[in-house]
Amino acid sequence: MQAVGIVVEYNPFHNGHAYHLEQAKKVAQADIVIAIMSGNFLQRGEPAMVDKWTRTQMALAGGVDIVIELPYVYSTAPATDFAKGAISLLSAIGCDSFAFGSEDGSIQPFMNTFQLIKNHRTEYDAFIKESLKTGASYPKSLHYAYEQLSQKFPATYIDLAQPNNILGFHYIEAAMALDSKIKPLTIPRIAAGYHDALQEGSSIASATGIRKALSSTSALQSVQDVLPKASFDYLTDWHGKYGKFASWDTFWPFLQFTLIRQTPKELTRYAEVTEGIEHALIKAAKTSHSFSSFMEKIKSKRYTWTRLQRMLTHIYTGFTKEQLQSFKAPSNIRLLGMSREGQAYLGMHKKDIPLPLISRVAAIDNAMLAVDIHAAEVYNLSIEHGAKEQNLPKDYQTPPIRF
Amino acid sequence: MQAVGIVVEYNPFHNGHAYHLEQAKKVAQADIVIAIMSGNFLQRGEPAMVDKWTRTQMALAGGVDIVIELPYVYSTAPATDFAKGAISLLSAIGCDSFAFGSEDGSIQPFMNTFQLIKNHRTEYDAFIKESLKTGASYPKSLHYAYEQLSQKFPATYIDLAQPNNILGFHYIEAAMALDSKIKPLTIPRIAAGYHDALQEGSSIASATGIRKALSSTSALQSVQDVLPKASFDYLTDWHGKYGKFASWDTFWPFLQFTLIRQTPKELTRYAEVTEGIEHALIKAAKTSHSFSSFMEKIKSKRYTWTRLQRMLTHIYTGFTKEQLQSFKAPSNIRLLGMSREGQAYLGMHKKDIPLPLISRVAAIDNAMLAVDIHAAEVYNLSIEHGAKEQNLPKDYQTPPIRF
Repeated sequence: MQAVGIVVEYNPFHNGHAYHLEQAKKVAQADIVIAIMSGNFLQRGEPAMVDKWTRTQMALAGGVDIVIELPYVYSTAPATDFAKGAISLLSAIGCDSFAFGSEDGSIQPFMNTFQLIKNHRTEYDAFIKESLKTGASYPKSLHYAYEQLSQKFPATYIDLAQPNNILGFHYIEAAMALDSKIKPLTIPRIAAGYHDALQEGSSIASATGIRKALSSTSALQSVQDVLPKASFDYLTDWHGKYGKFASWDTFWPFLQFTLIRQTPKELTRYAEVTEGIEHALIKAAKTSHSFSSFMEKIKSKRYTWTRLQRMLTHIYTGFTKEQLQSFKAPSNIRLLGMSREGQAYLGMHKKDIPLPLISRVAAIDNAMLAVDIHAAEVYNLSIEHGAKEQNLPKDYQTPPIRF
Repeated sequence: MQAVGIVVEYNPFHNGHAYHLEQAKKVAQADIVIAIMSGNFLQRGEPAMVDKWTRTQMALAGGVDIVIELPYVYSTAPATDFAKGAISLLSAIGCDSFAFGSEDGSIQPFMNTFQLIKNHRTEYDAFIKESLKTGASYPKSLHYAYEQLSQKFPATYIDLAQPNNILGFHYIEAAMALDSKIKPLTIPRIAAGYHDALQEGSSIASATGIRKALSSTSALQSVQDVLPKASFDYLTDWHGKYGKFASWDTFWPFLQFTLIRQTPKELTRYAEVTEGIEHALIKAAKTSHSFSSFMEKIKSKRYTWTRLQRMLTHIYTGFTKEQLQSFKAPSNIRLLGMSREGQAYLGMHKKDIPLPLISRVAAIDNAMLAVDIHAAEVYNLSIEHGAKEQNLPKDYQTPPIRF
């Protein structure tokens, strides 16, 4: 049985994801699809609009065979570590290949870019330094270094200004660093750009566009055309119960309280909180009545929006620098859900999987898993606050979903 | 100009307080009344139903001439330290006497009790130890020791099972420990017992009774007869703006989030959190949808309700053991409000006051004051959350109220 791996957030699962899934299976000639999916907090430093269990339901309904949780430690990390965590899990669970959507759409330019940077690391780093010295941000400096290098050694490279190309590049880096025979594949992304808004008459939209549509009108109807029926139904059901989707806007009261309640010194304990910014965070929190007005006050050239949101994620969940440093590699495979085919695959490959495959969390004492359970608890508090229902799955007791 | 001091919480200011005020002035033959009033958090370990500024308005309207804030460090402390903080401030501001309401109502039995315990301290402590060994709580053991001692040396003593007698006793202890000529006076409490519910046709009710009436019906009308008009109007105005009164019920969402977000080890950093209870606190918080169901789960013979609430107060505000230990005595006199007579008194006595008299907080860098400002900030967050208005006075900028 051949398995192809994908790395996903499904926030929420939409028609573009369904297409990517099919294509991944096709190009890999695989029997099943295994998705490594972020839990309740995502790479851009924000809570997922619905929790991991609901997104697992969507994924299984959409054709994924096995859903594995990307631990919080990786799901909220900068792209390099995010990719490391995801690819090493896909490799551990025995995928023959992994497929990612990219703007470029063919794999050779990715390999060229990877070799270019690998073979000229010293020069590359020197270009980065040079740019940082001018006061440019880290992402801008990376871009500058890449441009310089690719002009020096001409070949067909990927455009590293495209968000999905960047992520794909990190996947390849991670795969090449592993002692693994997992094979990278890429699929051209169709239609919607990463941040594009909904377009009338189209069945494909970006997740960002979908979330935006939902936050501004809260009219679920407006996104019906771009979502599989199952996704639409799960979102409708969720909104009926909790009256909101997760976002920093809805999480703001608890985030604000947490920011203001602590001393500046305490804030610097959390992952990614650089010393110096803590005073600005507290000061802005004291005078802001919404997340967006708070962000207006703290945004600066020095930090990307994503970076700021990641700090806030760690402050919200209480995830410290000390914890972050204590984790070296994924220490378990947390099963969130599976189809019958997925179950059959696991039955056949179980004995070859080098990490503990966890379906019953309550039986396990594992620090990395404890972070995920804790993150789910504090996520649930914001969702259930003021909601009609208080019945979100308690992570500690929930078994994998069988589909 | 003669000043009599009183120690108050005014939660809220009611007819019984107005009576006490008059009596205090009368028995002390004083020209003005100075009240040391708890800020936003009270001795029984709970938020005051309305903030310190609103309670200051009530106090001034009710006839108090000067309102001084009892710092958080003392206002949330066990009775001994509460009394120490309050009496040393009354002494510092130059009161000739202080008057407290008591069930006993005359001062000699208080002095007898004070002398009895002072002169037989070793025996008293031995009795306490003896009782603690049987598993009795600390308050019960104190009671036992006192009973034994007063049987051995018969005289007219106060009944130390009465809450106002206990507090009065601590005031006297605090006054005697000071190198001060401040003179203790007591006034018999009238009508309502400490925890009594409202009684029809009566103009006097306990603050507890009033709060209970307000929390169960939220019908302000029901307490109109037992409050001065000004108090009633301030409460009505507050409820109109914020839709609630402060209580652990309304503060529960942020308290619950704070309890669950932190690790057990982090919880033990806060004042009065005895090691061992942290796991129980977190476990109970995870399964409780209200403060009362939470308390049902954590209450035990080992801790009084008040003690538990004080722990929770410190967890809510983030007040640590380390902070608590760093404060030895009141380091400033924070002026919350004054009448014209109060102003005249301060003009005359300013130069004799040994502590800085603070009316402009923004100009001061003082650690004890910083705790009060911080406590007010986190208090305001719970009140303003979900409220129509977001205009509670920011402690940092608010000048004393002139009446």
